[in-house]
Amino acid sequence: MRLRKKKWSNDVYEDYQDVIVDEFEHIKGNWKETMRVDRLRLEIGSGKGDYWHHCADVYQPDGIIGMERDFTAGAIALKKLETYGKDRKRFIHNDAKSLIEMFGEGEIDVIHLNFSDPWPKTRHEKRRLTHPSKLELYKTVLSQNGEIWMKTDNVGLFNYSVVTVTQNGFDLIELDVDFRSQEKEDPTSEYERKFMEKGQPIFRAIWRKKDA
Amino acid sequence: MRLRKKKWSNDVYEDYQDVIVDEFEHIKGNWKETMRVDRLRLEIGSGKGDYWHHCADVYQPDGIIGMERDFTAGAIALKKLETYGKDRKRFIHNDAKSLIEMFGEGEIDVIHLNFSDPWPKTRHEKRRLTHPSKLELYKTVLSQNGEIWMKTDNVGLFNYSVVTVTQNGFDLIELDVDFRSQEKEDPTSEYERKFMEKGQPIFRAIWRKKDA
Ligand SMILES: C[S@@+](CC[C@H](N)C(=O)[O-])C[C@H]1O[C@@H](n2cnc3c(N)ncnc32)[C@H](O)[C@@H]1O
Ligand SMILES: C[S@@+](CC[C@H](N)C(=O)[O-])C[C@H]1O[C@@H](n2cnc3c(N)ncnc32)[C@H](O)[C@@H]1O
Repeated sequence: MRLRKKKWSNDVYEDYQDVIVDEFEHIKGNWKETMRVDRLRLEIGSGKGDYWHHCADVYQPDGIIGMERDFTAGAIALKKLETYGKDRKRFIHNDAKSLIEMFGEGEIDVIHLNFSDPWPKTRHEKRRLTHPSKLELYKTVLSQNGEIWMKTDNVGLFNYSVVTVTQNGFDLIELDVDFRSQEKEDPTSEYERKFMEKGQPIFRAIWRKKDA
Repeated sequence: MRLRKKKWSNDVYEDYQDVIVDEFEHIKGNWKETMRVDRLRLEIGSGKGDYWHHCADVYQPDGIIGMERDFTAGAIALKKLETYGKDRKRFIHNDAKSLIEMFGEGEIDVIHLNFSDPWPKTRHEKRRLTHPSKLELYKTVLSQNGEIWMKTDNVGLFNYSVVTVTQNGFDLIELDVDFRSQEKEDPTSEYERKFMEKGQPIFRAIWRKKDA
């Protein structure tokens, strides 16, 4: 079972070599030119890819990069290219901690964090995608006025993130403690739909990078 | 009925003249000396007074001022002095818009806003107790490092307030989108208990006045 999944995943990665970026020497600093877009979004922890794919439609004509460190989730996301198409999309199978090796300064306009792992224990705080050490990386790759868009169902992660991001170089510009109570154009992710079906509130915040 | 209520309220106000402050010429600038406290809290819109009364216990040895513009609600709050005692308490029957006439600069250490009227319509935005025009008054009467503590059940008011207060001279230092999911020492207000009984989440935020 494991091996068959691995084989299937390998094949998918093989099929979509043109969308996958795993060598950064040339593209770093030249992402927008290479993708022929004026604005660029990056989803960190894109999971099975629904948000990544729908982003490309909803936020046209921006370019959209999905980043996911789980190999199998990435394969599932890539497989959906068959249905949703490849326009203005790239995929990176890697970990956010290496962001600086992949992107030059100011190349990204929006970082999306959807239903990131909550890491509730204090001793795991460093692993949260909104820990100050991660925010430093985001500040480097984000453009002037670049934004972080976060959605989550998780009370603890949201409480932590709103305060931490706002205290570490970002202006809070939007907050919604019941984001799905009204119709919104922002696409839903796999996790988001799961929580909406259970009737749980979705929390959302947007920050803008402070002027240097 | 109306008249009897009015009569009852008048009598209560009569009985507690020593707790009520309605003349500010002498006390303005001298609140802490007069009340013999080192720290002073002000609850704006204290309603029927449960929070005001329990504050005096939980946040000892701080002084606590309840401010309420509704005459009858104020009478109900005052009547409870019989049960809870008068220590370190004052009451003001007035409107927050006149704050500057009652308090000197930096006299208040914490302003409490509990379940403030939400005023959901945009054309009533100015009436919200977290509108920038009110925040200017708060900044004047708050001490250095003075804080605003807000609780509400209202999604729209909370979304608005977190962004507005944070963008207008205050640092967000705490946020909780499910404040009552764990035991907390902060007292409950009448409205708070009503919403908790319905199983609704209580939202809470704390801000600190930015250094001038
Ligand atoms: C809870 S899932 C949510 C997936 C998707 N965003 C959604 O909303 O359906 C979190 C995902 O983030 C990925 N992830 C966590 N930390 C990461 C990191 N540092 N770099 C890249 N991906 C990460 C995990 O592998 C997982 O697929
Ligand atoms: C919804 S009630 C909440 C009462 C109480 N804080 C509680 O949590 O049970 C709001 C109260 O704020 C009072 N209020 C509203 N605006 C005010 C203002 N500008 N100045 C003084 N009181 C005000 C109202 O009269 C009302 O009693």
